[in-house]
Amino acid sequence: MKSFIGNSSVRRAVQLTSSNIRSFASTSAIMAKRIEKDAFGDIEVEDSVYWGAQTQRSLQNFEIGGDREKLPEPLIKAFGVLKKAAATVNMTYGLDPKIGEAIQTAAQEVIDGKLMAHFPLVVFQTGSGTQSNMNSNEVISNRAIEILGGKLGSKSPVHPNDHVNMSQSSNDTFPTVMHIAAVLEIQQKLLPALEDLLVAFKNKQEEFNHIIKIGRTHLQDATPLTLGQEFSGYVTQIEYGIKRVKSSLPHLRQLAQGGTAVGTGLNTRVGFDSAVAKAVSEITGEEFITAPNKFEALAAHDAIIEASGQLNTLAASLFKIANDIRYLGSGPRCGYGELNLPENEPGSSIMPGKVNPTQNEALTMLCAQVFGNHATITFSGASGQFELNVFKPVMISNLLSSIRLLADGARSFRIHCVEGIVANEKRIEQLMKESLMLVTALNPKIGYDMASKVAKNAHKKGITLKESALELKALTSEEFDHWVRPENMVGPSK
Amino acid sequence: MKSFIGNSSVRRAVQLTSSNIRSFASTSAIMAKRIEKDAFGDIEVEDSVYWGAQTQRSLQNFEIGGDREKLPEPLIKAFGVLKKAAATVNMTYGLDPKIGEAIQTAAQEVIDGKLMAHFPLVVFQTGSGTQSNMNSNEVISNRAIEILGGKLGSKSPVHPNDHVNMSQSSNDTFPTVMHIAAVLEIQQKLLPALEDLLVAFKNKQEEFNHIIKIGRTHLQDATPLTLGQEFSGYVTQIEYGIKRVKSSLPHLRQLAQGGTAVGTGLNTRVGFDSAVAKAVSEITGEEFITAPNKFEALAAHDAIIEASGQLNTLAASLFKIANDIRYLGSGPRCGYGELNLPENEPGSSIMPGKVNPTQNEALTMLCAQVFGNHATITFSGASGQFELNVFKPVMISNLLSSIRLLADGARSFRIHCVEGIVANEKRIEQLMKESLMLVTALNPKIGYDMASKVAKNAHKKGITLKESALELKALTSEEFDHWVRPENMVGPSK
Amino acid sequence: MKSFIGNSSVRRAVQLTSSNIRSFASTSAIMAKRIEKDAFGDIEVEDSVYWGAQTQRSLQNFEIGGDREKLPEPLIKAFGVLKKAAATVNMTYGLDPKIGEAIQTAAQEVIDGKLMAHFPLVVFQTGSGTQSNMNSNEVISNRAIEILGGKLGSKSPVHPNDHVNMSQSSNDTFPTVMHIAAVLEIQQKLLPALEDLLVAFKNKQEEFNHIIKIGRTHLQDATPLTLGQEFSGYVTQIEYGIKRVKSSLPHLRQLAQGGTAVGTGLNTRVGFDSAVAKAVSEITGEEFITAPNKFEALAAHDAIIEASGQLNTLAASLFKIANDIRYLGSGPRCGYGELNLPENEPGSSIMPGKVNPTQNEALTMLCAQVFGNHATITFSGASGQFELNVFKPVMISNLLSSIRLLADGARSFRIHCVEGIVANEKRIEQLMKESLMLVTALNPKIGYDMASKVAKNAHKKGITLKESALELKALTSEEFDHWVRPENMVGPSK
Amino acid sequence: MKSFIGNSSVRRAVQLTSSNIRSFASTSAIMAKRIEKDAFGDIEVEDSVYWGAQTQRSLQNFEIGGDREKLPEPLIKAFGVLKKAAATVNMTYGLDPKIGEAIQTAAQEVIDGKLMAHFPLVVFQTGSGTQSNMNSNEVISNRAIEILGGKLGSKSPVHPNDHVNMSQSSNDTFPTVMHIAAVLEIQQKLLPALEDLLVAFKNKQEEFNHIIKIGRTHLQDATPLTLGQEFSGYVTQIEYGIKRVKSSLPHLRQLAQGGTAVGTGLNTRVGFDSAVAKAVSEITGEEFITAPNKFEALAAHDAIIEASGQLNTLAASLFKIANDIRYLGSGPRCGYGELNLPENEPGSSIMPGKVNPTQNEALTMLCAQVFGNHATITFSGASGQFELNVFKPVMISNLLSSIRLLADGARSFRIHCVEGIVANEKRIEQLMKESLMLVTALNPKIGYDMASKVAKNAHKKGITLKESALELKALTSEEFDHWVRPENMVGPSK
Repeated sequence: MKSFIGNSSVRRAVQLTSSNIRSFASTSAIMAKRIEKDAFGDIEVEDSVYWGAQTQRSLQNFEIGGDREKLPEPLIKAFGVLKKAAATVNMTYGLDPKIGEAIQTAAQEVIDGKLMAHFPLVVFQTGSGTQSNMNSNEVISNRAIEILGGKLGSKSPVHPNDHVNMSQSSNDTFPTVMHIAAVLEIQQKLLPALEDLLVAFKNKQEEFNHIIKIGRTHLQDATPLTLGQEFSGYVTQIEYGIKRVKSSLPHLRQLAQGGTAVGTGLNTRVGFDSAVAKAVSEITGEEFITAPNKFEALAAHDAIIEASGQLNTLAASLFKIANDIRYLGSGPRCGYGELNLPENEPGSSIMPGKVNPTQNEALTMLCAQVFGNHATITFSGASGQFELNVFKPVMISNLLSSIRLLADGARSFRIHCVEGIVANEKRIEQLMKESLMLVTALNPKIGYDMASKVAKNAHKKGITLKESALELKALTSEEFDHWVRPENMVGPSK
Repeated sequence: MKSFIGNSSVRRAVQLTSSNIRSFASTSAIMAKRIEKDAFGDIEVEDSVYWGAQTQRSLQNFEIGGDREKLPEPLIKAFGVLKKAAATVNMTYGLDPKIGEAIQTAAQEVIDGKLMAHFPLVVFQTGSGTQSNMNSNEVISNRAIEILGGKLGSKSPVHPNDHVNMSQSSNDTFPTVMHIAAVLEIQQKLLPALEDLLVAFKNKQEEFNHIIKIGRTHLQDATPLTLGQEFSGYVTQIEYGIKRVKSSLPHLRQLAQGGTAVGTGLNTRVGFDSAVAKAVSEITGEEFITAPNKFEALAAHDAIIEASGQLNTLAASLFKIANDIRYLGSGPRCGYGELNLPENEPGSSIMPGKVNPTQNEALTMLCAQVFGNHATITFSGASGQFELNVFKPVMISNLLSSIRLLADGARSFRIHCVEGIVANEKRIEQLMKESLMLVTALNPKIGYDMASKVAKNAHKKGITLKESALELKALTSEEFDHWVRPENMVGPSK
Repeated sequence: MKSFIGNSSVRRAVQLTSSNIRSFASTSAIMAKRIEKDAFGDIEVEDSVYWGAQTQRSLQNFEIGGDREKLPEPLIKAFGVLKKAAATVNMTYGLDPKIGEAIQTAAQEVIDGKLMAHFPLVVFQTGSGTQSNMNSNEVISNRAIEILGGKLGSKSPVHPNDHVNMSQSSNDTFPTVMHIAAVLEIQQKLLPALEDLLVAFKNKQEEFNHIIKIGRTHLQDATPLTLGQEFSGYVTQIEYGIKRVKSSLPHLRQLAQGGTAVGTGLNTRVGFDSAVAKAVSEITGEEFITAPNKFEALAAHDAIIEASGQLNTLAASLFKIANDIRYLGSGPRCGYGELNLPENEPGSSIMPGKVNPTQNEALTMLCAQVFGNHATITFSGASGQFELNVFKPVMISNLLSSIRLLADGARSFRIHCVEGIVANEKRIEQLMKESLMLVTALNPKIGYDMASKVAKNAHKKGITLKESALELKALTSEEFDHWVRPENMVGPSK
Repeated sequence: MKSFIGNSSVRRAVQLTSSNIRSFASTSAIMAKRIEKDAFGDIEVEDSVYWGAQTQRSLQNFEIGGDREKLPEPLIKAFGVLKKAAATVNMTYGLDPKIGEAIQTAAQEVIDGKLMAHFPLVVFQTGSGTQSNMNSNEVISNRAIEILGGKLGSKSPVHPNDHVNMSQSSNDTFPTVMHIAAVLEIQQKLLPALEDLLVAFKNKQEEFNHIIKIGRTHLQDATPLTLGQEFSGYVTQIEYGIKRVKSSLPHLRQLAQGGTAVGTGLNTRVGFDSAVAKAVSEITGEEFITAPNKFEALAAHDAIIEASGQLNTLAASLFKIANDIRYLGSGPRCGYGELNLPENEPGSSIMPGKVNPTQNEALTMLCAQVFGNHATITFSGASGQFELNVFKPVMISNLLSSIRLLADGARSFRIHCVEGIVANEKRIEQLMKESLMLVTALNPKIGYDMASKVAKNAHKKGITLKESALELKALTSEEFDHWVRPENMVGPSK
């Protein structure tokens, strides 16, 4: 039978976007239609799509935000994972294997992204995501019906509720796919991107370790440090950022599945919850466990807020790093000019040497987006009521947005900026040597008062420390060169 | 010549989405390509698209977020408006009319949305939106070249910089289109949707004016009011919300155009700025003026923060209203049950009468999104540096998102919820009559102490006030009926 | 009688803080006590305080946050204003003038801050502020009793509820004092501080108008502008900020008084609401009107969110300005160094010339606080329920905090920073002359290609534009000096 | 010598508040003054205070926010801890024991809160907290001088910089005390309060375990659960909340001390950093370690953002719980009425039975404050520059506020609300029995279609399920009673 199921047999909607589909639906009388049914009665849907009545109603009742507000793809794929896992477990509890296997096959196509165009619903729908759960039930049942040679819309031999949604409720499936999608995106996209960024920064730290530069506190010249030390701060921030993101995973690995309508597990069998978590783990290769308390898992989404909080911290780190680097790269003549950042695109046709730190700009912008996403998630998570939080779609949509942006941003920033940073050693040395704070080294030699005079005289006359010191006859040229050694100022003394 | 330009001549990319284009670009060797050039040299682009070298580089350098992060359509259309206006004004300053008219025609196609697929760039790019300005220059110049029978990519006879971008800089065009798009979206989408919602609530206020109900403060039973009075609060909130949104328009109507690179207007002529503002007004039918101070207009986007602040207030109003209504509609048996909300889709196949307040859920979710968008906008707006704020794309993207969501949400909520709300008068009367606080009316008749005894006795025994009053022989049945009249408790006394 | 009332007769608690009082209360058995009563029965209070039973209970039931979370003083004073106004109006509706006048006198002492120590309650109490309304009723009635020679705690001849709170409910008094306090603080503190700051910046704009400097976009060197032009951007931001703050006043001038428990005005007389608003106007010298819709005025606090939104925008403006100025003042040797900021305190004992931009740091920190306050206010404002929003104390506390911080911050920043800023003209000129972008002026003379070569050659070799131009024989020394004139680049051409 | 140092010898400012001190300072010419000095020269201070020149300058330069914006007490005490620890370590590196011990004694008084009135500085000062570091140096040195019989202001024999601040910089001391204060407040106040709250909820869970009630999803009646199950969700939220807060401790336990000015440790000796961390651990009884990377520890405060993020999640949990409970307690006649909340103060004198859920209101308000504090912290943390974040005081002030509010709020909520919650079993049973969703139990017996008819008929006619079932002759009265058993619907089937 499986040979029967090729990409070629997948409905043509796959080649279209839902926006096309929708506009076709409204303008074209030519497209074939079929009748789908639910408790509200009959409704027409395009024959090119797999979805059924409830999806179609949602499309019509929630014209909010358009295509850019569609539920994110990783969530749709997680529905594929869950429905496949549920079918697997349900077969052990009596689901007809023919039906179960067809569901598994169709669900796998959802996982593979082949049916993405059949998931047209937006974030701003029922707050439990009910309609997206039904969307997945409808698409998988119709596709399974097709695989088994049945008639679309007939709900036979594969029923969206009785078979695909067996032992499940929107109230436990949606939080389950929220967690599956979040864990997979963090593990597969965000953490690898951060690990790569960490390596890039560590390489730069090492590369820059010998370069002594002026430190800056309050934006004012301070005592020196090495450029490698400066970058080691970034390394640590990213290192800790990775730890922070990872620390949010254990709660995300808990799945609500098995709680059904209100957390009690009504209409499931003892053990169903753990079996599904196990099946999801097998399909995804990631560890998931059943949530010890299903009431919390349906009514609150603290795990999402917690994860968002860690992403928020990570974004603050990246914002600081990107900001520093663009200031250090400012110039070429009238800024700090200590770093040369890669040139990726024309800055301006009339100003050669003008490199705009565009990667830093993209990164700081997306960090600002993550901060806002976090505010949305916090507000939504706090606003649950009784047995159900009904801000689920907006919470997961914002979390997946933050994950994706940080992952893409970290990768882009690494490739197009960090790896290509070159220290402008000449400029760094020039600034460092001009700095007045090197006078600190003379305190033990000529006394604080004379050192202070040397510095003030240099500042007032705009001359170098050495010039000032010689002018004031504080010490000889040789003594100055011997004692004023920045390389001795970049660590504690023995 | 104009007869020559039909939809049919518009490049085929129009029928595709940029995501298709991108995947085609990477997988298909068959598609024809051409060479485009910029200061960085040659680069290949698909021959099916109008964009040029700088757009192509941006696509490759900023793989961040994918299609859902593309700059919003109203902004692209605003580029059409601006480029058409600039061409109009530039012709009065010497731009060859043949070139100018071709630009106008191509720009009009951008306004009409015909070239949307040729604007593939995402929000997270250069923070000045430079690459999107170039995207519009490239698309319009190539389309104008095509109209004039030239060769795509030749930059002749219509040059993207010299002609389409004449007298302009990304630094003034991008803030200009930010304001154009914001004003148009507010005027064309948000305000009409709010005005309609206001009417719907006013109708309900009138319809419900005769219905006396229990008031609730601290969620606890309080003195009565009419359901119409309760809805009048919502009416006022929306009325003021409309005023608030309108109050943000004057600053948005100020256009940065004419400031060029840093606000000085270098490379423009005196009067260019006002002339462009006038041309934009004529094209859009909305009033725009040139910003009195261009330095502020480039370096800060306080007008965007201000507008977002007003949307934030509006969202808080709508959140409160939607929340009240869903609680008042809670039940059917175990909640407040004072309102019947329209049933738009199956709640549950086993629980007849279960109407989920899904429109309220969508509305409260999108309000939470608006709160987060506002946080992003505030952070971004505060983070400008020197002559340029480089968070422009993320600011306008979030503002347009808020406007769109509130407009769509207000319309959806009105159609699918507010207009269909029915008062459950029987339930309302039952609750009101059971309430103990009606005892307040007896204070002047039987004294506070006896009234207090009546109420406490009723509360303790779970009987009605009247039963309690009669039991305590506080007054006769007739007296009770004569004095305890909720209709006399819903306003000040004369 | 009035001669009888001197400061000397005011209870000694005035000289103590509430924290002292509280600790005395718990540790000292020596202090005299009296019994106060409410519906819950008797309770002991220190005889040194004017407050009564309900205040005392609140102190014990809400040990949250301690002294730093006490309700802010302007709110307490506004209670004085309201209670005085209510007494004035109540006398026209039959309140015994002897009682009314004693209330007026005591209320005036609240206005004058003489009784501040008798208002010990914290923000985190009943969400309607009921206990603070009772605190003001209790203090004023006891003080009025004292004035009239009665016994504290006797509620005779002045009863806290029957007389001081006559025709009022916490539910309308608290929102009323929220608005009174907000308007007075904005008018008396914030707007004057902003007007002064505006003047200071305008003076600097004028002072700096002749100084041509390098512009910076993307932090990179760009075309020139005058330092006066740069500061004109700040001037405009503050000018608009003042407009924004003022635009929030009309809604704040609406008073809820007269709505009583749920907005209906039960237990008031027709006209009471307007009369109180008029009396408040007369006492304060500020215009107030009665809120056209009392239901909105109790159940929502959109006016507070709106005002906070405008403060949020103002804070974003100030953040940007303060940030720019500290970067422009960075150095002295290794930063931008274009501005010299006033030295107000020692930076470091070893680094002469190190001026830390501490005023900018304080200002940016308080702007960050305003952003957070705004988030709190938004969340709280959105979370009202039915006839009453029960986040009143936290909303007004945060709004008054934002007003105070911005007022104090603007004043401190003006006095200790802005007025003392000195342009480092030598440094500004040096940077400007070194900049490569002046080459732009040569485009029309020697052509873009040769200009480009000149600039690239200069950049590569680290020489000046002029040196490069002469080396490439692009033009003569005289020609260069004649054409490359920054003063011609700071505005549009005629 | 120690016997010499009694409370009695502590300066009289202890009995005053700084606000008194300040007003005295400005109004009274009588108070004795002395001269203090710093690099800026002489300055007069009241002789009643221990602080010196830099503190006095800060008081005058930063009149921002007044007393409610003073740095929080736990931070001042942490300065005592640090200065004592540093003295201990410095003695091993050569500090004169006589001086070192006097510093230890004075620092212990800071720890004990005896010198609190001598720390008058506000949050909005230098962003590095330099002036507060100097405040602690000045107070401790003057107090140590006094102990040693010297003259205040003489800097001899104990110098604020040379001795108290030995081997330290504001840039490492301030982040160090931030972490010390945060850890101590979390460990000593927040976690115990949360643990107690957890116990209280667990007790209620057990107490309520037998009570079957209607579940509510989307606010609509759903399938039943036990009240104990409902409370088990709250238990889990608090349990996880405790874990979340604890998870933020490891990064907070890292101390910046030893980094001095820019993180390099200039002017310290190898090992100083670890030794101080050890000494701090010994003084506090809490584990602290030296930060592995000092550059990160000065330039970023990600650990503070992370901790705030966890508090933010906790606040969202508490908000949800408090909100649920007040709705479940709404009534007494016209709300849900399932819970009776403790009555702590008069609700209204005319409405017996009106219990306002004031503890829930205080708790939800403070959660809203925590959300706002988190926004401030995030913004501030992201805005560090180069070697130093200069938003330190505002960050720690907001974090300590969140910790304190959550600790106090959790305790107050437990004592005054949770522990006294009583289930209204009669009402709960009545609602549960009236609910139509119990029909679900009949599906397997009479079929879905007939069950559906029974429910719809009951809903339409407003009768019970049983009445409806008998009317439709779906089954007998005995059968109904046998099959419709809510107690079988609160878990999965075996």
